[in-house]
This record gives sequence, C-alpha cells and structure tokens, in this order.
Amino acid sequence: METRLHNPPSAEEILQAHERIKPFINRTPVMTSGTLNRILDAEVFFKCENFQKVGAFKARGATNAVLSLDEAVISKGVATHSSGNHAQALSWAASLRNIPAFIVMPENSSRVKVDAVKEYGGIIRFCKPTLAAREETLKEVIAETGAIEVHPYNNMNIIAGQATAAKELLDEVSALSLLLAPVGGGGLLSGTALAVHYFSPHTKVIAAEPEKANDAWLSFTRKEFVPSVNPQTIADGLRTSLGSYTFPIILDHVENIVTVSEESIITAMRFTWERMKILVETSSAVTVAALLEHKVDVKGKKVGVVISGGNVDLDDLPWAR
Amino acid sequence: METRLHNPPSAEEILQAHERIKPFINRTPVMTSGTLNRILDAEVFFKCENFQKVGAFKARGATNAVLSLDEAVISKGVATHSSGNHAQALSWAASLRNIPAFIVMPENSSRVKVDAVKEYGGIIRFCKPTLAAREETLKEVIAETGAIEVHPYNNMNIIAGQATAAKELLDEVSALSLLLAPVGGGGLLSGTALAVHYFSPHTKVIAAEPEKANDAWLSFTRKEFVPSVNPQTIADGLRTSLGSYTFPIILDHVENIVTVSEESIITAMRFTWERMKILVETSSAVTVAALLEHKVDVKGKKVGVVISGGNVDLDDLPWAR
Repeated sequence: METRLHNPPSAEEILQAHERIKPFINRTPVMTSGTLNRILDAEVFFKCENFQKVGAFKARGATNAVLSLDEAVISKGVATHSSGNHAQALSWAASLRNIPAFIVMPENSSRVKVDAVKEYGGIIRFCKPTLAAREETLKEVIAETGAIEVHPYNNMNIIAGQATAAKELLDEVSALSLLLAPVGGGGLLSGTALAVHYFSPHTKVIAAEPEKANDAWLSFTRKEFVPSVNPQTIADGLRTSLGSYTFPIILDHVENIVTVSEESIITAMRFTWERMKILVETSSAVTVAALLEHKVDVKGKKVGVVISGGNVDLDDLPWAR
Repeated sequence: METRLHNPPSAEEILQAHERIKPFINRTPVMTSGTLNRILDAEVFFKCENFQKVGAFKARGATNAVLSLDEAVISKGVATHSSGNHAQALSWAASLRNIPAFIVMPENSSRVKVDAVKEYGGIIRFCKPTLAAREETLKEVIAETGAIEVHPYNNMNIIAGQATAAKELLDEVSALSLLLAPVGGGGLLSGTALAVHYFSPHTKVIAAEPEKANDAWLSFTRKEFVPSVNPQTIADGLRTSLGSYTFPIILDHVENIVTVSEESIITAMRFTWERMKILVETSSAVTVAALLEHKVDVKGKKVGVVISGGNVDLDDLPWAR
C-alpha cells in the first residue's frame, strides 16, 4: 500500500501523515515570551520545532516519506543531496526502517554537519560544491545502489509531513489570526498553508524570507517562478529555490511574503536566545525578525510562529564573527 | 499578617508560598533528552527554571519574600547586595508590589547584569568589589532609605519560595529516585530538600558543586561550616558560602554532595545547548556535568534535575574564551 502522493495532500492525508509519524517524532512544545508580547502588543505562540528529533521540523517530512513507501520501492534505501537538516532527518528516518540513507554532501560541508549525518547513520558521498555536481553525484549513487530519491521539499509526502507541525499548533491554540513560517524551498510553508487552509481557514499565513534570498517573494509577487541564484544570506536553510510542487500551493494559500535584512535576522536570533532561552537557527530567526521589524501588523492579534530548527555551530555564532 | 518565617518552612508553608507566587511566576516546563537518556541509561526530567521570570528560579524566592511581608515593614522598599540573578529577581518582585528595590552591586559588575537590574526597575548603588564593601554599603542604604534587607538565600521565605520548583516537578513526575540541584548559598538546595522531604520522601536529593568552590561539600562532609574563600569557578552563581539557615536543612535532608571539574562544567553546558537546544547558565551545567561524569549512579533510575537559570552573556561564552 504505497502512499506516494502526486496531488497536494488532502486534509485526510495530512491527518494520516500525522498518525503515521506520531510514534516517532516529538510533540514539540508551544512557548510564549512575555517580553515579546509586551513589545508587540500581541499574543505570540511559538511552535518549537527546534526541539524536534534531529533538531528541526525536517524530521516530520522525512519520517512520513520513508514510512509511506512500499517495501519493494524502498528496500535498497533512500538518497538525497543536502548539506543541511534534511540530510540528518533522512538519515534518522531511514534508520527507523532499518534501510540505508545515501547522502550526497558538498566536500566543503562543515565538520559539524558531516558528523551529525554520520551520527544518524547516513552514508555520505562527497562531491564538488556546485548544484550540478550534487545532482550528478546523486544520479550516480542512485544508479549504483537502487536507492529512491527523497527530495527535501518537492515531494508531496514531505509536504504532508511538514504540515503536521502547524496542525499540532492549531490543535493547541485556537483562533490564530496569523501564522508565520520561514520560506526556503517551500516545504514547510506549503505544508503550513495547507494545514491552515483545511483546519483553520480564518487564519492567514505569512512567510518571511531574507532580503538577500528574496526569490520566493519575487516569485510570489510576479506569480511566476524566479530561481534563487547564489544567495549570500546567513540563513543557510533558506537559500534554495521554490519547487514545482511547493510554489503553486504557496500561490494558492499564502497571504503574503515579507523580507528582512541580514542585520535584523542576527538581532532576532540573539533576542530569541537571550530572552526566550532557546537556541534557534538563523533560518528560524527570520520570522522573529519580521515581527521585531514590524513587517507584519500583529497588534492586538493572536499570532503563531513556526520555529523551524535549532541546529547551530556554537563555534561560529553570527554576532561573534 | 506578616509571614516572615523563622523556622524551616513546613509543608503547609511551602504550599502557601506556592499559592502566593503562582499568579506571578511561570509554571516552567519539564523537558527530557532522548540522547541523554540513552547515554545514561536513565530517565532524566529537567525542571527548566531557565524559563522562569527573570531567567532563574530566584524569581520564586524573591516573590515569596516580597509578598509575605506586611505593608508596614516593606513600604520603604527592599534591599540586597547581589551581582547576580537575585538582584534581578528582587527588582522584578518589588515592582509587583510597586515598592523600590535598592541593589548594591560591585562597581566591576558586567554591563549585562547592570542593564538587567535597571530594566527590572532596581535602584543601583555601586560599591568596591569586596564583601566588606558590599555589606557596608548595604547597611548605609538601609539606614538611609528604611528598606528591609532580603538576603538571597539565608531567609526562610526565600527558601520556601525556592522549594516550589521541586514541588512542581514532583507534582508532574512521580516516583523519582533522585533529584539533583546545584549548591551555592544553599537556597535552592535547602528548598528542594524540604520539598522532597515533605512530598516525596523516598526520593534522594543530591547536590552538585564545582570542585573549585567545594565549600558546601567540605561543610557537608565535616558536618561543620566551611566558608567559601575567593573561589575561581566559572559557575559564578555557586561561589557563595552556605548560610546559617540553609546549612542545617542541607545536613538533615540532603543525601550527598558531589563535585565536578571546570572542564566538565563547560562540556556539560555545551552539551545542553547543542542537544537540548536550551540556554542554561554555567551554574546549571554543574548538575548535568555530574550526570555526564557519572558522579551519581543513575542507571535505570528516574532522575529529576533542577535547571537553575539561563542568564548568560552571549559575548563571553566559556568555549570561546
């Protein structure tokens, strides 16, 4: 009973994804900050996926993708190219099913990230640090091993999995006016937007993106796909382009995309660490920056925020550079 | 109806303290780490007072002390000498009652700490950085203002307040074999030990202390008070000596005190940040160090740990020095 989705996940499919992954993932806490609420004159609820398995929401999608596929399709393993949280998430999810995860990583990946993938049991193949080399090497690995590719975001099972974070938040906090999420490839954002569409249709979804990687904003505004070309943002999880699956969902169900400066991302990251005492990564600070910079009108409103992850290199903090 | 306690707080008095402070403090979350549980082969429950008001358990004691005193006694304000979390906590608690908090701080206190006290409304008087100067200046301030001293730990209302953290943990997690807390002046530890004595008598309380500030361990072992003399530990919240109120409670109700190295404190702090994604301060890492260094036999056991606070200077992290 393979459940590889080809249309955008339905409400039922998101609920099924949730049931499927629930035994393996963390039900992450929803946290608040009195200080932030006072500053904004709003009620903000953070869905803290930095406390998720592997330290990021990516565990949800990867687990759903790995558990959804038929034994015959997946027995030789899964494969992806990623230097980020998806690499760790897929390695971890594959271990739940006792199948190999082949991870193509650029040879200049940080030691921290390489070690994390190895720790979760991923089998690493290094390549030159270009998109062409990554794709080529992934093809080779798949040809050699018979593994099936699990794309980090342009995959409906991944999107259904990522949708479950917003679903849990909506279950816990009612009547949100707004729900904010960061946007890179759009897996989290499209899943969030679908969950809101089905389970809380009066809530508006707002995405936040670095100005220096504003391809999603451009695409959304022009209503045509604009690729991300070598963006230099510190928010390394948000450098990717939207996908052919994620972009249409975002066009249909997202209210707005706002952009924030690099400086405001660093300030917001530090604010979150100092005041909320939680580690969030740069990509997660982008939504907090949008709030602190008043890029979104939240006054008097109940606002949800998906904190996407907390994987940081403590030897390379942005304010110490 | 002044309720200034002179005997160790009774079970009833701890429950009253809890009711008194509940509307003002955070019910902090209890968190777990799958990684740590696997490493230790134990079930560890962290009572996360880093998420408390002002970022530390000190808000509990200060609030209880401030709210327990008669209007006539307290109308001129409260006063203390402290360069740490008690200064912030007392400033914040005083603001709840709209009375002034006079804080004597050494003139070499870090900018971060001075700013935090000011932010909570504390009125700072600087002094030379010696204990004699601090005590002398505090006397002067009290003579001038008519404020009443609220000692950071050698005060039964403070001890009753600090006891409520363990009380909440015991309410939430049953049948703990062990409960760990750090020890500096002993306010948190004596409160924790009393809460366990009354509400979970089969649980054993273990304290953790830096080797380089092992005065509590020496006092406990010799059963006679040994002062802390200019200790050089990085765990700046644990440099103080036990008090005449806290030491007898600790002798009566604490099972053991273990000590840990400076290196292990830094390693444990970093482990907690990286793996649990929460900011804990050096003083809180001392208990985690005791676990990671196997200074306490926890195998197969249910173990509670009071994480005391999360106030850190992000510009001065110990692994970056």
